[in-house]
Amino acid sequence: MPPRHQLLLLNGPNLNLLGVREPERYGTTTLQEIEDMAGKAAAEHGIAIQAVQSNHEGVLIDTLHAARTTCAGVIINPGGLTHTSVSLRDAVAAVALPTVEVHITNIHRKEPFRHHSYISGVADAVIAGAGPIGYVLAVTYLAHALG
Amino acid sequence: MPPRHQLLLLNGPNLNLLGVREPERYGTTTLQEIEDMAGKAAAEHGIAIQAVQSNHEGVLIDTLHAARTTCAGVIINPGGLTHTSVSLRDAVAAVALPTVEVHITNIHRKEPFRHHSYISGVADAVIAGAGPIGYVLAVTYLAHALG
Amino acid sequence: MPPRHQLLLLNGPNLNLLGVREPERYGTTTLQEIEDMAGKAAAEHGIAIQAVQSNHEGVLIDTLHAARTTCAGVIINPGGLTHTSVSLRDAVAAVALPTVEVHITNIHRKEPFRHHSYISGVADAVIAGAGPIGYVLAVTYLAHALG
Amino acid sequence: MPPRHQLLLLNGPNLNLLGVREPERYGTTTLQEIEDMAGKAAAEHGIAIQAVQSNHEGVLIDTLHAARTTCAGVIINPGGLTHTSVSLRDAVAAVALPTVEVHITNIHRKEPFRHHSYISGVADAVIAGAGPIGYVLAVTYLAHALG
Amino acid sequence: MPPRHQLLLLNGPNLNLLGVREPERYGTTTLQEIEDMAGKAAAEHGIAIQAVQSNHEGVLIDTLHAARTTCAGVIINPGGLTHTSVSLRDAVAAVALPTVEVHITNIHRKEPFRHHSYISGVADAVIAGAGPIGYVLAVTYLAHALG
Amino acid sequence: MPPRHQLLLLNGPNLNLLGVREPERYGTTTLQEIEDMAGKAAAEHGIAIQAVQSNHEGVLIDTLHAARTTCAGVIINPGGLTHTSVSLRDAVAAVALPTVEVHITNIHRKEPFRHHSYISGVADAVIAGAGPIGYVLAVTYLAHALG
Amino acid sequence: MPPRHQLLLLNGPNLNLLGVREPERYGTTTLQEIEDMAGKAAAEHGIAIQAVQSNHEGVLIDTLHAARTTCAGVIINPGGLTHTSVSLRDAVAAVALPTVEVHITNIHRKEPFRHHSYISGVADAVIAGAGPIGYVLAVTYLAHALG
Amino acid sequence: MPPRHQLLLLNGPNLNLLGVREPERYGTTTLQEIEDMAGKAAAEHGIAIQAVQSNHEGVLIDTLHAARTTCAGVIINPGGLTHTSVSLRDAVAAVALPTVEVHITNIHRKEPFRHHSYISGVADAVIAGAGPIGYVLAVTYLAHALG
Amino acid sequence: MPPRHQLLLLNGPNLNLLGVREPERYGTTTLQEIEDMAGKAAAEHGIAIQAVQSNHEGVLIDTLHAARTTCAGVIINPGGLTHTSVSLRDAVAAVALPTVEVHITNIHRKEPFRHHSYISGVADAVIAGAGPIGYVLAVTYLAHALG
Amino acid sequence: MPPRHQLLLLNGPNLNLLGVREPERYGTTTLQEIEDMAGKAAAEHGIAIQAVQSNHEGVLIDTLHAARTTCAGVIINPGGLTHTSVSLRDAVAAVALPTVEVHITNIHRKEPFRHHSYISGVADAVIAGAGPIGYVLAVTYLAHALG
Amino acid sequence: MPPRHQLLLLNGPNLNLLGVREPERYGTTTLQEIEDMAGKAAAEHGIAIQAVQSNHEGVLIDTLHAARTTCAGVIINPGGLTHTSVSLRDAVAAVALPTVEVHITNIHRKEPFRHHSYISGVADAVIAGAGPIGYVLAVTYLAHALG
Amino acid sequence: MPPRHQLLLLNGPNLNLLGVREPERYGTTTLQEIEDMAGKAAAEHGIAIQAVQSNHEGVLIDTLHAARTTCAGVIINPGGLTHTSVSLRDAVAAVALPTVEVHITNIHRKEPFRHHSYISGVADAVIAGAGPIGYVLAVTYLAHALG
Repeated sequence: MPPRHQLLLLNGPNLNLLGVREPERYGTTTLQEIEDMAGKAAAEHGIAIQAVQSNHEGVLIDTLHAARTTCAGVIINPGGLTHTSVSLRDAVAAVALPTVEVHITNIHRKEPFRHHSYISGVADAVIAGAGPIGYVLAVTYLAHALG
Repeated sequence: MPPRHQLLLLNGPNLNLLGVREPERYGTTTLQEIEDMAGKAAAEHGIAIQAVQSNHEGVLIDTLHAARTTCAGVIINPGGLTHTSVSLRDAVAAVALPTVEVHITNIHRKEPFRHHSYISGVADAVIAGAGPIGYVLAVTYLAHALG
Repeated sequence: MPPRHQLLLLNGPNLNLLGVREPERYGTTTLQEIEDMAGKAAAEHGIAIQAVQSNHEGVLIDTLHAARTTCAGVIINPGGLTHTSVSLRDAVAAVALPTVEVHITNIHRKEPFRHHSYISGVADAVIAGAGPIGYVLAVTYLAHALG
Repeated sequence: MPPRHQLLLLNGPNLNLLGVREPERYGTTTLQEIEDMAGKAAAEHGIAIQAVQSNHEGVLIDTLHAARTTCAGVIINPGGLTHTSVSLRDAVAAVALPTVEVHITNIHRKEPFRHHSYISGVADAVIAGAGPIGYVLAVTYLAHALG
Repeated sequence: MPPRHQLLLLNGPNLNLLGVREPERYGTTTLQEIEDMAGKAAAEHGIAIQAVQSNHEGVLIDTLHAARTTCAGVIINPGGLTHTSVSLRDAVAAVALPTVEVHITNIHRKEPFRHHSYISGVADAVIAGAGPIGYVLAVTYLAHALG
Repeated sequence: MPPRHQLLLLNGPNLNLLGVREPERYGTTTLQEIEDMAGKAAAEHGIAIQAVQSNHEGVLIDTLHAARTTCAGVIINPGGLTHTSVSLRDAVAAVALPTVEVHITNIHRKEPFRHHSYISGVADAVIAGAGPIGYVLAVTYLAHALG
Repeated sequence: MPPRHQLLLLNGPNLNLLGVREPERYGTTTLQEIEDMAGKAAAEHGIAIQAVQSNHEGVLIDTLHAARTTCAGVIINPGGLTHTSVSLRDAVAAVALPTVEVHITNIHRKEPFRHHSYISGVADAVIAGAGPIGYVLAVTYLAHALG
Repeated sequence: MPPRHQLLLLNGPNLNLLGVREPERYGTTTLQEIEDMAGKAAAEHGIAIQAVQSNHEGVLIDTLHAARTTCAGVIINPGGLTHTSVSLRDAVAAVALPTVEVHITNIHRKEPFRHHSYISGVADAVIAGAGPIGYVLAVTYLAHALG
Repeated sequence: MPPRHQLLLLNGPNLNLLGVREPERYGTTTLQEIEDMAGKAAAEHGIAIQAVQSNHEGVLIDTLHAARTTCAGVIINPGGLTHTSVSLRDAVAAVALPTVEVHITNIHRKEPFRHHSYISGVADAVIAGAGPIGYVLAVTYLAHALG
Repeated sequence: MPPRHQLLLLNGPNLNLLGVREPERYGTTTLQEIEDMAGKAAAEHGIAIQAVQSNHEGVLIDTLHAARTTCAGVIINPGGLTHTSVSLRDAVAAVALPTVEVHITNIHRKEPFRHHSYISGVADAVIAGAGPIGYVLAVTYLAHALG
Repeated sequence: MPPRHQLLLLNGPNLNLLGVREPERYGTTTLQEIEDMAGKAAAEHGIAIQAVQSNHEGVLIDTLHAARTTCAGVIINPGGLTHTSVSLRDAVAAVALPTVEVHITNIHRKEPFRHHSYISGVADAVIAGAGPIGYVLAVTYLAHALG
Repeated sequence: MPPRHQLLLLNGPNLNLLGVREPERYGTTTLQEIEDMAGKAAAEHGIAIQAVQSNHEGVLIDTLHAARTTCAGVIINPGGLTHTSVSLRDAVAAVALPTVEVHITNIHRKEPFRHHSYISGVADAVIAGAGPIGYVLAVTYLAHALG
């Protein structure tokens, strides 16, 4: 598939537990369901989704590097790495694709150390607190941005 | 119109200059065009938009108070008040409607004093950096949230 | 009425919603009831109350300026401006009347950004957390201070 | 006397010097006179005052503990311990009686290290800067709160 | 009058009290006298002064916006808003006229919270502590800068 | 009894209220029961416990000084003094016995000012959040350390 | 083995070098010996130990996730990740098993950046500075807590 | 003895251990020897020394209060209270006698939390790091200052 | 020349390079030209200028000391010493002449460490960002102040 | 090969993209070319280079551990982990070989969060901003240091 | 003169103005009188004083270097360099003679930026606030320390 | 000699004592020996070294200014001025020659106030902790950079 028609959907540490653990906090939607929602929304624009989740920072970076030649945009929820990983930030910057940072919950209503994101400084757009639908909004934005 | 079918679209200080001044920074889309885009997107969900812009904090607060009985949700771009107004925060919290905070540019890529928002702590969702389309995403989110 | 026998009772942003919104936090007493309570307490000392509420910082400042020649003391609950308005502080200082700062709730038990008041540094006395009765205590204090 | 009808009036370090030293700063009213004023104000509500002053943090804590079964409310001026004593804060919290923190002068107009109070976070109400009359206001509040 | 020959002289909150209140601090010159002094100095360069004072942040912003098409430069003393208003800063930046920030007193000799100005970062020049003559110096600078 | 066979069990301010007040926070175990548990655990190692509790910093310091010649180790729960007392820290350092700092609750899950302990920097080991059993663990550690 | 009878013993980066490198700092006990000590202590309570060490954050998180269905409690020494990993913290919180954080040395006596632990805020108990015996104390605590 | 001829020599927590504990840090001179040295130096000026040491903050404050009418100056080494006691500071200020703060060791070469003294802001002179002779220098200074 | 008719124009480190280096930042006007401009402006008021530039802090201080008896006012651009020299501040304060601090560029638009000036706290007026003309404005101010 | 004659050349996250991405920032030299340059420089001293690059923190730590017995020194460019990884710091310290930290660009000219390195505190030497030649300088240093 | 019998008395910037300027702050004693007082006090111990004052940091450092072989101890009042000069600190440390830091006024009662001294961390003793007699106390201390 | 073939080797305060004082910290190599080493290394590239050392900030700045027309690059070890001199930083920036900042020891392993360098922000490369050989590495780098 030409990169032009593919988006990388990258989820970081602990997001594999979505819908399984702490549903009162993160809802009952599973990661698989989110990836399906995003895929369906993308398909309406003739775009495919490459979905990857990993608890390993290194795998996330390797995946971003690979996306340079296979994808046209990135949707990334870096999980806990949001607040701590300069390396992930550098990878997003180096790959230089249109990028949307997504957080399911509103990180500004949580502990102070979650208010700062190393990724936001290199992302194009940031969507937080919109729940699973936030990923769909990110797809809409990228489809629009990629014209 | 029953409140159930109306959203308040509230823009704060200096946003009346959108598209007129500093287009290299904020683009050429005018506030009127944004309000039209949001209105059109809302209409697809059978929802109306009440659009208000003011450079006066007091007017913004008065408008929010009034929306308690006339609107079902709020889209707010507080402009420079984002970073300084506890009173506006209190108004958003007191009105207690589903609220999306929107910023046209990614505030996390600008001066450090723009990285903190008093509004984010009481908003449901935050969308930053998506340009004018960010308002449309906010409409989509609220239409979804209001079922 | 000679200024000697009048106090300005000034309430800032969002206090018009008292008793109407978030009663679990601020109680069910309305602002009108508070103004009546204060007026009744003042009357016992032969003093009248001029009650003003506004969500506009500018109106609050204008009102303070006018009180220079019409009032003998000020009771002020600056609402969210407590923590952000140097201009309101300057107005209180310039007017130079005996001033009591009142907060219905104990601001020291709330978010950290509510622990600092720009007004306290120029007020004579501060009363926080006493609920609506705090306004009555302020009247008692000013009646005593004005001899 | 049943606890229902008694308030603890607790004054901390150096307050025994009131009216004796630095009258230009703290006035000429002695601690004895303040205790008498408070006692008289309480008597109007059929309430007695148990007045204790100590320069020893431990004595203040012991006294608070004892008040759990003998008093219905606490008026406390912790003096210099206001800004430094987590132990006194914990005692106030553990005793869990309605508590008013009183400061004769407005601590927010003094050195920065006097702007923070460890006690305010566990007190119900705080009255500062009202001079000796502040203790009387505290009695009024507690009489009202104990209804 | 063509904008080329007019300067906006904008004074913020509490400056209407100049010469009336606290003369020991701000001198006995009234705002009217200052506006006359500035007007006279400008006239020597064939320039008119449009003088506006308001205690309302919103009015100040509206006035700045309007000056875009009617004035060639701005002299602004933002009063207490100097230290707190990002919105006013944004208005100055958006209007993009040659701008001089003036303070009658030397803000660096006052409370620490007055040492930082949100306006200085977008003004061309800053003059503080020169008293009423500071406005005249600002006129001189702008006349020179506008050639 | 030779010091070799005795441990000082020192509890600071407010710990006398254990099991009596706020059981939802600190449990229902009384200080007497904790001292008995620790004594029983120590007895299994042929060690006695000298148990002291005081709300007076000075008494705690005096007791530590006396332990220099009568005890072989110290278990200390400094209560609120944990976060404020350099003098207690100095006493622990001066006495120079093997020392375990114990907190019944996990101080790192409480208010930020409880996250720092002046004692930890001079204690050998720190046990927090283990409830009353934490004292028993401390006995086990000291019995092991004293070999 | 039913989860009820198994504890996860998780050691993070560099702890594989225990007893091998810097014995003057961390002692001569190897990680294998510690795991054996913990295993023996657990066996006395009829509990097995699953011991895992990794220098990879991702492996530690994966292992914690897996323990949700196979273990009844967690003993974790996160090594250097203690001070930097929000992702590991989130994993501990998501797994929601009784958890003890163990540090062989007293981190409060080391560099300031080692005084803060991201894990302590979600652990039940914290034991630091007790040397290898700290792991045994953790087993004792968990055996007690699991009843 | 008339106050004119007496100095209070006040030593705070842990200074009773001088010469007994940690001689490598604080030397082998005992507190008794220091008091004798100071007494002998004072006697050369016809002045007596009233020497008090206590580990109780309250006792130190009570002693200072009493010195108001019995002494002409104060030499104080507040020990660990130096860095934490606002109450002791207030007592020194209230007593308002010529006061020298003495530290045996140079507190600026020790832990950062020992670099700040609450007492220095109200003492006349500060002598640190001169060892036991520092007390003698303080006597010399006071004898000189008292003329 | 009587001091009454002379001003010291003092320029600090690197200002000798004005107009020679980095003209895109500091313009093409040389220091000699600035001194001539200031001299000419002063001459209109019958005042002479004593111009000194040095890269040596000590020379600047010596020059200020000497000006006590030869000059009636000081115009100082301390260059990089603005932000670091307490000694220069002390010299300005000790000399106690009317003093204007001048900066060619607006230091508030540069690196954060350039936002604070040790000199401003002891200068009468501060002029920044007005370019070379700023020195002329300073002359005007001093001529006016010296009346 | 005996360890005596081998150096570990360790590059962290994103350095595999050198010369490929952002050449305007990091130049056009590839990592392979750098490794060749370093190898050639080392060969002149009869030393071999073991070159490893990984985006995985865990792999970097494992590699350092292995180098304890196979290498005589380390050249490390930790990439983004420089600023965030205590674990990598601990690994460098535990391995205890002569170590040079290298950064291609001058990290002190970049974002503030890049000014602090966790590695520098345990490295012997630090070389930043010298470009690819920095690795060659590091080889020279180690060859010299290893004699 | 053998170094054994000479002390360097070093005074920094602006101290040449002692007794001449601001006598209400620093008294009427001139530097010459202080040097004479110190010389006389030293002579009683058979010690000479080499007195140097300079407003040039470099001269102070050169003088300290030279004292290595000519003096047995140093009395230094660094003036404003106290708070800013790491170079002077390094010189004191490198010379490694017994050193007393003297301040005529109590720097802890002045502006916050005067509370920190770079010199105190390398001086043996610090004497502040004792006025000119402080230099004499320093001589006494050094005479005693040099035995 | 044409500038093209000369480098300025500039050493700041206290570096004249190298090899003479504190050899356990800075080694036994003297500054003369370092200058010879650097000169020899430069000679291999056909480059001369102009070596200057001064304890006077002003002299260092004057020397840098002069190098604009006589040298092609700068090697600077600013000594203690590294951490305090904005003026020296400005001189380096104004001179705008390729510049290497050298520190003999690793400043990141020393006191926190030595971790920040005002020079690094304007230098091209920074070499710290490499000992005297660091100067040779700097020569190599500049020879390479100057091609």
